[in-house]
Amino acid sequence: MAKDKKQPRPKAETPKGFRDYFGAEVEDRRTMLDTIAGVYHRYGFDALESSGVETVEALGKFLPDVDRPNEGVFAWQDEDEQWMALRYDLTAPLARVYAQHRNDLPTPYRRYAMGPVWRNEKPGPGRFRQFYQCDADTVGTASMAADAEICALLSDALEAVGIPRGDYVVRVNNRKVLNGVLEVAGLPEDAFTERGIVLRAIDKLDRLGSDGVRALLGQGRKDESGDFTEGAGLSSFQIETIMAFADATARINARLSEIASDAIEKGLPNSRLVRALNSTLNENAVDATVAPHDPESGQYRMSVTLDYLSEIVGNSDVGAEGVNELREIADLLAAQGYGPDRIVIDPSVVRGLGYYTGPVFEAELTFEILDEKGRPRQFGSVAGGGRYDDLVARFTGQTVPAVGMSIGVDRLLAALRAKGRLDRAAEGPVVVTVMDRYRMADYQAMVAELRNAGIRAEVYLGNPKNFGNQMKYADRRNSPIAVIEGGDEKARGVVQLKDLILGAEIAKDATLEEWKERPSQVEVSRASLVDEVRKMLASQTPSQVSDA
Amino acid sequence: MAKDKKQPRPKAETPKGFRDYFGAEVEDRRTMLDTIAGVYHRYGFDALESSGVETVEALGKFLPDVDRPNEGVFAWQDEDEQWMALRYDLTAPLARVYAQHRNDLPTPYRRYAMGPVWRNEKPGPGRFRQFYQCDADTVGTASMAADAEICALLSDALEAVGIPRGDYVVRVNNRKVLNGVLEVAGLPEDAFTERGIVLRAIDKLDRLGSDGVRALLGQGRKDESGDFTEGAGLSSFQIETIMAFADATARINARLSEIASDAIEKGLPNSRLVRALNSTLNENAVDATVAPHDPESGQYRMSVTLDYLSEIVGNSDVGAEGVNELREIADLLAAQGYGPDRIVIDPSVVRGLGYYTGPVFEAELTFEILDEKGRPRQFGSVAGGGRYDDLVARFTGQTVPAVGMSIGVDRLLAALRAKGRLDRAAEGPVVVTVMDRYRMADYQAMVAELRNAGIRAEVYLGNPKNFGNQMKYADRRNSPIAVIEGGDEKARGVVQLKDLILGAEIAKDATLEEWKERPSQVEVSRASLVDEVRKMLASQTPSQVSDA
Repeated sequence: MAKDKKQPRPKAETPKGFRDYFGAEVEDRRTMLDTIAGVYHRYGFDALESSGVETVEALGKFLPDVDRPNEGVFAWQDEDEQWMALRYDLTAPLARVYAQHRNDLPTPYRRYAMGPVWRNEKPGPGRFRQFYQCDADTVGTASMAADAEICALLSDALEAVGIPRGDYVVRVNNRKVLNGVLEVAGLPEDAFTERGIVLRAIDKLDRLGSDGVRALLGQGRKDESGDFTEGAGLSSFQIETIMAFADATARINARLSEIASDAIEKGLPNSRLVRALNSTLNENAVDATVAPHDPESGQYRMSVTLDYLSEIVGNSDVGAEGVNELREIADLLAAQGYGPDRIVIDPSVVRGLGYYTGPVFEAELTFEILDEKGRPRQFGSVAGGGRYDDLVARFTGQTVPAVGMSIGVDRLLAALRAKGRLDRAAEGPVVVTVMDRYRMADYQAMVAELRNAGIRAEVYLGNPKNFGNQMKYADRRNSPIAVIEGGDEKARGVVQLKDLILGAEIAKDATLEEWKERPSQVEVSRASLVDEVRKMLASQTPSQVSDA
Repeated sequence: MAKDKKQPRPKAETPKGFRDYFGAEVEDRRTMLDTIAGVYHRYGFDALESSGVETVEALGKFLPDVDRPNEGVFAWQDEDEQWMALRYDLTAPLARVYAQHRNDLPTPYRRYAMGPVWRNEKPGPGRFRQFYQCDADTVGTASMAADAEICALLSDALEAVGIPRGDYVVRVNNRKVLNGVLEVAGLPEDAFTERGIVLRAIDKLDRLGSDGVRALLGQGRKDESGDFTEGAGLSSFQIETIMAFADATARINARLSEIASDAIEKGLPNSRLVRALNSTLNENAVDATVAPHDPESGQYRMSVTLDYLSEIVGNSDVGAEGVNELREIADLLAAQGYGPDRIVIDPSVVRGLGYYTGPVFEAELTFEILDEKGRPRQFGSVAGGGRYDDLVARFTGQTVPAVGMSIGVDRLLAALRAKGRLDRAAEGPVVVTVMDRYRMADYQAMVAELRNAGIRAEVYLGNPKNFGNQMKYADRRNSPIAVIEGGDEKARGVVQLKDLILGAEIAKDATLEEWKERPSQVEVSRASLVDEVRKMLASQTPSQVSDA
C-alpha cells in the first residue's frame, strides 16, 4: 500500500465561531456549574441530561414553508433521511423529554440541566457558536409559588457563585400586564401584527427614547440617516395607553418624587420617602432605586409600582390577573425573606415579553466593569426566564404550564473575572526536576509521595539535559516549588527546594542585599520532603493572595 | 395570521441511538468525573475543553477516495461548503489543539479532557451514539516515565472512584515486542498486508484457540458452518515464531508450573513458587495470576514474563527495545510502589496493538457480575490507552511523541452499579405539604428555612385539593419526610413531621401492634422545625444504608 496520493496537510484550527478552553477556564466553569447544581438540588430540582442531538422535528425548527431546517441550528440528515440537529437551548429538549416520559415523572416536575448548546449563527467577537447554559424549570403547575421559587433560586444561585447581595438584582415583569394594556388600547389578542409592532417598539425604548417609541406606534419614524420606518398607525389614545406601560419607570419615579416633595413640604421628611426621592433623582434611576442596602425604600417603591400598574390595566381582566400575579410573587418572596434588595417588580423588563406568556425574570449585575477601552459600563444581564405555558402542547395537544430560567454561565464567569474574583492562586504543580536521567525512578518516587499526600506534583518529562529548560518549564507551569536532587544531594540524603514564588518576588523587587538575606532555596532532608513542601506551600499562600 | 396549514404533531422521541439521563444517573456521573479530574489534576495534568464540533479535515475523517466524510462521524456542510463534524473521540481534537497552540503550551504537555463524543454507528442494546470519555495524555515526550505515569494515574483514578485494589488490574503490553517477533518471522515493516492478517488472527485467539490462529496464519481455516477463511500462507517457522507471542500466556504459565514442580521435587517448596504454581493451575489463569493479594508471586511472574519475551524477540533490535521499555515501565512503577498487584506486564493484551506504536495499556475489572440472564461473567475492560507517536505530524509534518489513555466512564458507572456500590440513599427532598392553599407563603417560609440550613426541601406545587396525591408525590420523589401544617397546627404553633422511610418499613413488615408502638408521625413546635427535621434525617441514615 504505497502512499501515492499525498493529501495536503489539514489546517489545525477550530471551525469558525468555536474555541478551546484551557486549564483554569475549564476548572472555574466546572466549579461554577457544580455550585449552581448544588443550589438547584437543594431546592428539590432533579438533574436531567438529554442528548446533544435531537430530531429537527422535536426541536420545532422547520420553517413553515421550507423543507430544510431553520438556519439557526446545525442540522444534517441521518442515513434514513431523518433530519437531526444539535440542540440550540435546553428548553426545547425539556419539552420533548416531558412529553416522552410524563407518565414516569413526578408532577410537578422540577428539573435542572446544564451543558453546551449550539447556534448556527454568524460568529462575532465574544459570540461563539457553542456555549453553556444552566437551566432550572418547573413543569406542570400554574401556581405563582413556582415562579416565586424560580426567582429565589436564581438569587441564591448568584450568591452561591460569588455575586454578593447588592451586586445583582432580579427584576420581574409580567406579559399579562402588557396584554391588559393592549386590551385597554383596543388591540385584541388576535391582532398579531399590531401587537408585534408594539412589542418591537417598546423594546427600543432604551435606544430611541419615549418620543421615538411614540413615533413608531403612530405615523412612523425617520432616523438620523433619513431612513423611514413605517409606524403602527395607532390613535393618540392607543399610543398614550401603551406609553403608560412602556414609560412606566419614568412615571413611577416622577410619582415617587412628587410624594416625597409633598412630604418634605408638609414637614414630614419621612426618611423612607426621602430615600425614595433621592434614588429617583439619581440619573441612573432604574438601578439606583434598587436600593440594595435599603430594603425599606425598595418595598415602598414596589407598592407604588403595583398600584401604578393596577391603574394602567384599567378594567382588563387579564391585566388585573397580571398585576395580581406580580403581587402574589412579591408576597411569597417576602415571606421567604427575599425583599426588594434582591428581587424587584420592574415594568422596565421587556426582554422575553414576546416569548413568555406570564411573568418574566431577568437577573442583572449592578456593578460597573471596565470595557475593552477602559470605560466603565454596567455589566448587565446574566440570567433570564419566565412562564411559558404551551411548549409541551406541541407534542401532546395538552397545554402544560411551565416556568423556568437559564443562567448564562460564561457571562457570569466573565463578570467574576472582570471583578478579579477568580484570581485564585494558579495552583501549578510542584515540579521535581531531573538531574540524573538514569535516576528517573528516584524522581518518580518523590512525585508519588507528594501526590499521595494530596499535593499536585509532576516530574519533568522533557529532555533533562538543559537545566535552564527545566526551570523555564516550571515557570510556564506556574509551579510554586521546584525540587532538585543531584548526585551530591542523593549521597547526603537531602534535596533542594526552590521557592519559585518567593524567587519571582525577589527577582522583581529586591536589592542584591535583600536577595542574599531571603534565600529562596533551602536544603531539607529527603525523608522530610513532603512535610517541607507542605510547609513552603503554606508560607506562600498569603503572598499569592496579596498578589491577586 | 390564521393557522391554515396544520402540521402533524412531532414525535416526542430522541433520535435513534440517543438517550436521556435522569437524576442520580447524572449526579453519579458528575461525581465520578469530578473525582477523576481531581486525580488528573493532582498528577499535574491541565484541563482542556475543546469544542464538540471540528472540521472534518482536522478529524482526518475523509476516506481516501471519497469526498464525503467517513460514515463513522456525524457531519454536515457549513454555509461556505466546509464540512464540519461532531468529534468521535478526545484524541483527534487533542492533536489539533496541540498543533494549533504548541507555541503557547508547555512541553511536555500533560492534559486531561472529559465530555461527550459522538459516533455515527448502528445503535444496539447498550450501544449509544453519544457517550462520555475521560482522557489523560502527555504530548511531547518519548520518556517511558510518561507511560509509567499514565499507568499509575489509571490505577489511582480507578481506586478514587471506588474500585478497591484487587478488583482491577492494569495490563501493559508493547507493540514493539510484536514488531520484533514479526521481524524474527521475516515479515518486514512494509509487509502491511501480512502484518494486518497476523494482527487480526492474534486478536481471535480467545475465540478460536491456538489451533484456529495457527490455521489462519497458515493455509486458512474452515469454520463450523463450512465457510473457509483464506490464510496468510506463512511457513511453519513463521507460524511458530508468531505463536510464541500469541500464545505467550499459556507458555509462561507452563514454564512457571515446571519451575514450581521442580522446586517441590527437589524438596524446595519455596512458598512463592508454589503460589505461582497454584495460580497457573487455576483454570482462569490469566486473571488468577494477577494474584491481587500477593505482590511477591506477581513480581516473580513478571520477571519470568520479561525473560520469556526477551527470548522470543531474538536478535530483533525493535523487539529488544520493546522488552526494555516494558522493563523500564515496571521498574519505574515499582519505585513508586505500584507493584503487580495493580499493574502487570501481560503479553495477552492485544487490543490496541494495531493502533498504537509502543506500549499499550488496558484496565480490567477482575470481579464477576451477573449478566442479564443471571449468569456470572467477568466485567472486563473499563479503560485503555497507549503510545501513539504520529498524530500531530498530520498537521505539522513533525513527529511528536505522545501517550495517553481513556476511561470509559459509563462502563465504570455500570460496574459500580452492578456491585451495588452506588446504592446511596436516594436523597429525595423533604416535602412540605399544602393544607391551606391560601397559606402558601407560610409553606414557602418553611422550605426557605430548611434550604438555608442546607436541607434539600420543596413545597408541593401541584393542586393541593387531594392530600392523597400529595403523599403519592412525596413517595415518587423518594422523600424522607413530609411536613404537615393544617389550620389547627398553625393555631397551636406546631407542625407534623411524617417519617416516610420509617412509614414505608412499617407498612412492609409491621403488625398492627407494632404499628401503634412505632409512630411514624411526630408533632413538633414550628420554631424547632429545622432542628427536628435534621434529627429525623439523622435517625434515618442507618436504616437507609441497611436497605441498600
